Amino acid sequence: MSTKYNHVKEKIKSKILEGFFEPHEKIGSESDLMAEHKVSRHTVRKAIDNLANEGWLYKKQGAGTFCADRTLDKEPSMGAVKNIAVITTYFSDYIFPTIIRGAEGYLSENGYQVTVFSTNNNIEQERRCLETILSQKFYGLIVEPTKSALPNPNINYYLNIERLGIPYVMINAYYEELEPIHLIMDDVEGGFQQTNHLIELGHQHILGFFKNDDIQGTKRMKGFIQAHRKSGLPVSPQNIITYTTETKNTTPIEELLLKMKKKEQIPTAIVCYNDQLALNLLNVLRDLEISVPEQISLVGFDDSFLSVASEVKLTTIKHPQVKMGEDAAKTILKLIKQKYESSENGVVPSIKYCPKLVVRKSTKEQEKIELN
Amino acid sequence: MSTKYNHVKEKIKSKILEGFFEPHEKIGSESDLMAEHKVSRHTVRKAIDNLANEGWLYKKQGAGTFCADRTLDKEPSMGAVKNIAVITTYFSDYIFPTIIRGAEGYLSENGYQVTVFSTNNNIEQERRCLETILSQKFYGLIVEPTKSALPNPNINYYLNIERLGIPYVMINAYYEELEPIHLIMDDVEGGFQQTNHLIELGHQHILGFFKNDDIQGTKRMKGFIQAHRKSGLPVSPQNIITYTTETKNTTPIEELLLKMKKKEQIPTAIVCYNDQLALNLLNVLRDLEISVPEQISLVGFDDSFLSVASEVKLTTIKHPQVKMGEDAAKTILKLIKQKYESSENGVVPSIKYCPKLVVRKSTKEQEKIELN
Repeated sequence: MSTKYNHVKEKIKSKILEGFFEPHEKIGSESDLMAEHKVSRHTVRKAIDNLANEGWLYKKQGAGTFCADRTLDKEPSMGAVKNIAVITTYFSDYIFPTIIRGAEGYLSENGYQVTVFSTNNNIEQERRCLETILSQKFYGLIVEPTKSALPNPNINYYLNIERLGIPYVMINAYYEELEPIHLIMDDVEGGFQQTNHLIELGHQHILGFFKNDDIQGTKRMKGFIQAHRKSGLPVSPQNIITYTTETKNTTPIEELLLKMKKKEQIPTAIVCYNDQLALNLLNVLRDLEISVPEQISLVGFDDSFLSVASEVKLTTIKHPQVKMGEDAAKTILKLIKQKYESSENGVVPSIKYCPKLVVRKSTKEQEKIELN
Repeated sequence: MSTKYNHVKEKIKSKILEGFFEPHEKIGSESDLMAEHKVSRHTVRKAIDNLANEGWLYKKQGAGTFCADRTLDKEPSMGAVKNIAVITTYFSDYIFPTIIRGAEGYLSENGYQVTVFSTNNNIEQERRCLETILSQKFYGLIVEPTKSALPNPNINYYLNIERLGIPYVMINAYYEELEPIHLIMDDVEGGFQQTNHLIELGHQHILGFFKNDDIQGTKRMKGFIQAHRKSGLPVSPQNIITYTTETKNTTPIEELLLKMKKKEQIPTAIVCYNDQLALNLLNVLRDLEISVPEQISLVGFDDSFLSVASEVKLTTIKHPQVKMGEDAAKTILKLIKQKYESSENGVVPSIKYCPKLVVRKSTKEQEKIELN
């Protein structure tokens, strides 16, 4: 229904959702709104009446129209349904269903219901998820940030969520400036372990592939560089390849093909941003008839189901997955209790998981090349 | 001279500069290069001969052409001239000449010469600066990173600089994954002090303007949020305005005009990313006939010459400026000594400067509005 009044209504609602109006702030007069949206008084009135009926605005006789206070001070009364929203970048892919399962399991045991949203690591979709969530009443939010290595234009929505008193925690990464309670891997240490394992096996020409629109990629790259420095091995600039969500299916493959064509200093090992990429590169190597781990070693990250689904079982880094989901659920329930029951006290801590290397079949000692 | 051989020559040189070839790595055969660049054997030979004459490549009879080793193990022999390169985002503007002056003073006293480069906070220009620097022989580099809040595509050049054994330090910000020795402000604390000062003066509706393509902006925003939280004042999402290098002359002004048109909860104070922005906003407020600090308080950042040049002297945060330049010069000389003289030992530390609030005339106590 893209009637005129509906259009005006949605515009005003959007402003409320992103925190443009504060609770009890007067929104413009009818004339202001008529001018702003270039519509008739009738249309403005219809939009406002509608929003007031839905609880977004309230009117005071003779004083005007005000933004409603949607702050959750009391437990929302929604009958028996207690809803928690979980936003992840993806939800049917890779390790994400497992993380969500961990959260869902614990929350449903405790009488909560889980609604899932995914952003496809796209900030515009993240904004739409946040608008949808803010339009409804959720007890709490578990959020995996979208493109966490870039400045986030949706920070305002999170601040509005905070102002409305909705507890939230972030998983896998977090927006630095918000300092939310978070549950993350120690990604620097993870990247260090991946690389150090290969160096200890005698590899000297190691390629590193890192996704750099998510902060995890930057941190794993930092670990890659740290491991080289620690062992006195120079980092070859050409050996670090970065890519983004948008180029993940092209850049790494193109770059690997290029590197394997070299005649000297051919890489003997690869550090992958995650298992998903490791599998993609495994396919490229198979097409090139280069065998893993005999000719080249490969380390994944996340210990996902993919790492044992491939014909060469991947050496990888353990991600807590179900446990992270469960812990996120426990954390959000603690925050909700603190809010509605004065019984629960104390600071709710963030959690950083220590990565652990899982050695399988994709890595192998590099034979010393004997000269003469 | 865009002759064919020159074009091929520049392409090969570019690959050497960004570290595509390692020292002593064989570059392609003549036939490979002919195919790659779609030129004749004659052109390829001319380009290679030229590069060999200039010391970029060397030939081995019967074996081929190799990338020269330009690593600086011995002190470069350049007669009496010892050159240090300083890259900043801007050099004729704002606090940058003062920082450079600090470095230049100390370096020239110690027999070094300074060559300055500026990137205009543009990564393409940063790449060109780095190529120029890598084409010459510098003893060391002092670098202010470009767009430090975004993933940097020039990381490879810095890694190549490291591999070539050229010491470098970063000022004002640094690329996280490189972990270079750095000299920075405590920007979170700075943003906190700006905001806390206003809150202590009784302000409750504080606008914050932050440039978010540089990490300093993200950190100052974090301090802004921290100060609100500490005093229990809710952060209004609408009160945080972010902008970039490209929009710095438009977005903040447009947003301020919009906010000052509001009828309620009009901001009574503004936290500015820096003094430059504070001055721009001061102009907007003068045009609106809003007086500073009577109707609105304003805090700058950097304690630049601008803060006392305006008709309203700015309350601001002290930036070390000359001292940062001097300290950067001292640090780079220590690193150079460590490299060429075994006498100098120990870890060279990074420096974090503690910000200090300078109270002038742009901030004022907010009068309590008496109701009744």
